[in-house]
Amino acid sequence: MNEIAKELLKEVSGLEEMPKGAYNIRENSKSIARQSSENIEIVSKEDKSGIDIIVKPNTKSEHVFIPALVSCGGVHDLVYNDFFIGENADIIIIAGCGVSTGDSCDGSEHNGIHRFFLGKNSRVRYVEKHIGVGIGTGKRVINPVTEVEQEEGSFMEMETTQIKGVDSTRRFTKAKLKDNAKLVIKEKLMTHGDQFAESKFEVDMDGEDSSVNLISRSVARDYSRQTFISKINGNTRCVGHSECDAIIMDHGVVSAIPEITANSLDATLIHEAAIGKIAGDQMIKLMTLGLTEGEAEAKIIDGFLN
Amino acid sequence: MNEIAKELLKEVSGLEEMPKGAYNIRENSKSIARQSSENIEIVSKEDKSGIDIIVKPNTKSEHVFIPALVSCGGVHDLVYNDFFIGENADIIIIAGCGVSTGDSCDGSEHNGIHRFFLGKNSRVRYVEKHIGVGIGTGKRVINPVTEVEQEEGSFMEMETTQIKGVDSTRRFTKAKLKDNAKLVIKEKLMTHGDQFAESKFEVDMDGEDSSVNLISRSVARDYSRQTFISKINGNTRCVGHSECDAIIMDHGVVSAIPEITANSLDATLIHEAAIGKIAGDQMIKLMTLGLTEGEAEAKIIDGFLN
Repeated sequence: MNEIAKELLKEVSGLEEMPKGAYNIRENSKSIARQSSENIEIVSKEDKSGIDIIVKPNTKSEHVFIPALVSCGGVHDLVYNDFFIGENADIIIIAGCGVSTGDSCDGSEHNGIHRFFLGKNSRVRYVEKHIGVGIGTGKRVINPVTEVEQEEGSFMEMETTQIKGVDSTRRFTKAKLKDNAKLVIKEKLMTHGDQFAESKFEVDMDGEDSSVNLISRSVARDYSRQTFISKINGNTRCVGHSECDAIIMDHGVVSAIPEITANSLDATLIHEAAIGKIAGDQMIKLMTLGLTEGEAEAKIIDGFLN
Repeated sequence: MNEIAKELLKEVSGLEEMPKGAYNIRENSKSIARQSSENIEIVSKEDKSGIDIIVKPNTKSEHVFIPALVSCGGVHDLVYNDFFIGENADIIIIAGCGVSTGDSCDGSEHNGIHRFFLGKNSRVRYVEKHIGVGIGTGKRVINPVTEVEQEEGSFMEMETTQIKGVDSTRRFTKAKLKDNAKLVIKEKLMTHGDQFAESKFEVDMDGEDSSVNLISRSVARDYSRQTFISKINGNTRCVGHSECDAIIMDHGVVSAIPEITANSLDATLIHEAAIGKIAGDQMIKLMTLGLTEGEAEAKIIDGFLN
């Protein structure tokens, strides 16, 4: 792994050395390091690029790291990762992606298709951080597709973050929830320059007392554009909530299109969205306390996203 | 005008006799009574079915009644009405539509395309009530298209109500707002049986300090289906708010798809939507006070819609 890849690895997954337990590190479309643990087995797919991550029932408090790195221009990575989470398991998955195109004029992209099959009463915390780095004209593109199937009583929390350097992203997250399954999604997106980001969600609450809570916070700076689309279907007794708050700066453009459909009398669905610039009085308050305009802005954005 | 038409007229516009001032009453695709006033002129269109309503500048506190009635089955009415509101005018327009198919097996429909051109600083209150009546299998369909163009400083308030008897409706309301123009839309919709209702809005705030406030309240009973779609574009310094609250009962299905897009840093846009059934504690409270289940339900629905 070269210095660029090491830097990316640290940024997206916090890793400075190989972790304990299970991991798979992918660089430029190839697995470059892998380890299974007693409870978590990682095996290559035979029919296409990617891995199966098989978590034994009752596995507790283990981490799985599966960062993907693209460390040069001209790479078009496509990977299929499937997660099979055994009953009653309770684990954390760290899955970031960093794309560096250096000073290359060739763009690079990473397309990751992740599927999650959560067994009964299992719990997963999924943390995903996307960044792009490079000074050349090559575009950095990350298009993640995430499909989640949750069995009875399972819980999944997804924390996804894209803060900088990704020129274009199309995110698509799809979930199907059985009885008592709960899904929490926290998304943070910041775009700048002339970047484009689309984030699309589709959640079917098929099981009684299932619930979804979808919270998206985004900031669009410069000439960047963002579209947030969510579709929540309440098909039985269930509770759905979606919330999209966006701050626009400079010439940023944000659209929010949240769709909620109650197909059952016992579905309760709520969504909220607000788009606007930083409130003037907040700026004034911080500047009165001695911050410059830039510092005040940074502080507000930081507080908003965290 | 026969008894059915008289009854419809009373229901949709509150009229029991011909009003003072300007009016046009349409029955089964024909104008059956018309009167212009000194300040409000009503003239037939020459190229198609419909009327132009021309309101002189500075006209104050006048009413215009333009109810449309369909009093039998087999009628397919299509009408184009254009309203030209002079500068500084301040008027009320009562425009309801009643469709009765009696015991006919033939359906009837009314398609009204209304365009409003509001002059500078003019004010319009537009009240529209839609009902359907009939015991036959003939479907009653009302599809209104409303286009609004608001000059600087104008104000329009639309109150639209569809409470019962309309088997299918597709409503489309479109508005373009210049500087300081304000638009308030209050929609009430109740569907029952296997009725279908779609209500679509598209508002462009092109002028500085323009604003739109869109409030939709709906109730879907039995097997009825409703779709609410709103699209609010903030293209400059402006404020947009949309709110869609729906109560579902029995097997009713409601979708809400509000889209907000900030194309300007100075646009502030908010939307909220909530779909659910009548809260149990509200029912219990009213039943504790001596109301039957049916009475309690009726009271809650009534309060919600009014």
